[in-house]
Amino acid sequence: MNKHLEEIAANRSFGGWHKRFRHRSTVLDCEMEFGVYLPPSAEKGPVPVLWWLSGLTCTDENFMQKAGAHQVASELGIAIVCPDTSPRGTDLPGEHDSYDFGSGAGFYLNAATDPWRRHYRMYDYVTDELPAVVSGDLPVNDVQGISGHSMGGHGALVCALKNPGRYRSLSAFAPISNPTRCAWGEKAFTGYLGDDRNQWKDWDATELIGNNGCDLEILVDQGEADNFLKEGQLRPESLEKACQASSTPLNLRMQPGYDHSYFFIATFIEDHLQHHGRFLR
Amino acid sequence: MNKHLEEIAANRSFGGWHKRFRHRSTVLDCEMEFGVYLPPSAEKGPVPVLWWLSGLTCTDENFMQKAGAHQVASELGIAIVCPDTSPRGTDLPGEHDSYDFGSGAGFYLNAATDPWRRHYRMYDYVTDELPAVVSGDLPVNDVQGISGHSMGGHGALVCALKNPGRYRSLSAFAPISNPTRCAWGEKAFTGYLGDDRNQWKDWDATELIGNNGCDLEILVDQGEADNFLKEGQLRPESLEKACQASSTPLNLRMQPGYDHSYFFIATFIEDHLQHHGRFLR
Repeated sequence: MNKHLEEIAANRSFGGWHKRFRHRSTVLDCEMEFGVYLPPSAEKGPVPVLWWLSGLTCTDENFMQKAGAHQVASELGIAIVCPDTSPRGTDLPGEHDSYDFGSGAGFYLNAATDPWRRHYRMYDYVTDELPAVVSGDLPVNDVQGISGHSMGGHGALVCALKNPGRYRSLSAFAPISNPTRCAWGEKAFTGYLGDDRNQWKDWDATELIGNNGCDLEILVDQGEADNFLKEGQLRPESLEKACQASSTPLNLRMQPGYDHSYFFIATFIEDHLQHHGRFLR
Repeated sequence: MNKHLEEIAANRSFGGWHKRFRHRSTVLDCEMEFGVYLPPSAEKGPVPVLWWLSGLTCTDENFMQKAGAHQVASELGIAIVCPDTSPRGTDLPGEHDSYDFGSGAGFYLNAATDPWRRHYRMYDYVTDELPAVVSGDLPVNDVQGISGHSMGGHGALVCALKNPGRYRSLSAFAPISNPTRCAWGEKAFTGYLGDDRNQWKDWDATELIGNNGCDLEILVDQGEADNFLKEGQLRPESLEKACQASSTPLNLRMQPGYDHSYFFIATFIEDHLQHHGRFLR
């Protein structure tokens, strides 16, 4: 165990372990915490890993506690790693004033503006620094998939799209599919990236798919009763159109009656884990 | 729908509904909230109901969000009702000062001392008033089982033991089995019941089983790595001894490595739901 990786919690769960760790992030220039589910098979050798990126206001704990993902991950022999959703312990001007910008709302991008660019580099953190930490100290191999919810569903899409060949599987729950064209994304990108909208396109999944497509089969679940869908924050239709135009295989499932909550995620997480299992095992 | 039962949340979950309600409790003399999981089959007619009593510090929400119980309840066609763990909205002297007494710590008994006896009547609430409210307004029938965790595991035992024939099934996770002989129970019973320890016995599951036994097969899971077991708060050995003495069928399963958390509950909730399903369907 790396002396810089401090175990802060360990709970037996479905024959494996849920663990939480604290470490110093060089990329984010702060202390960070993250959660891991290790299936029983990880005691015999390295296992594939599914990255889960959470949504606005979450920490590493919400998904682990509420999604009911451990049982199937245990059966499939897949580890799950949940990063936090922003740098922590910093105190930048306005950082803690709103739920959709600053702390808890890092949007998995690298900020370009002051004062955010010093700490808000969640893209580099989740695609580069944290994978190195995890693979160095935990029993996972280099077979990786990625998924997430809402802001994190979009983060998963962007991470996969910007790194062809890195992830073998990709899915998302209710992703913010086209942030350059919704209120959440416009607020976040203005703050983190500045006013030049051309710079924004490099962090928008719909734009990235439109440019380059994606070889991975993408599974997306979207609740039809999701208030944020109705508000135009999610725009799955934009993602669908971009996938069609670029011949990217997208399985977009509209789920009648389901909202944006973890009850929605819990209901369909088994399908997503099985989807990832097809490519990760 | 009773005009006094206000729906405050509704989420689709595994084809059914998680709902939360607010109502005025006459017994507790305050406004209360509770949670319900209704399986898909409840849309066709009344279904059996499992009462779940939560532990110290919980509200009606913890179990619903963290236990992963909805999938199997959906498959079995069983509703789950989660009451809160104490009266709310009151402000008695010292009521909110500690996690193990007062708010969040009602211990599912009827208090006998001032000022608690005016509001702290959680036993009457969960065995009498709330069942009438639920059966009057929600699609459940009179086939009932009961379970719970820690303080609520003990509450489930006491509710069943004091009402032979009322519940068809009974289980508990890490119950406070013998509260008259542990620190949590001594503090709570002194506060709610007074100094006469003879009065305490009527609210102690081990004492009640020792006196009268129980016809139900009781399933109990207890994690061996549970810190509260080590502290002597749970005393499953006392429960086991009382069951043996009274020929009460107890299946006490010691689970190596598991602690007191919802990860422990989530791991074994399917077994408990199947146990209840055997008697409720």
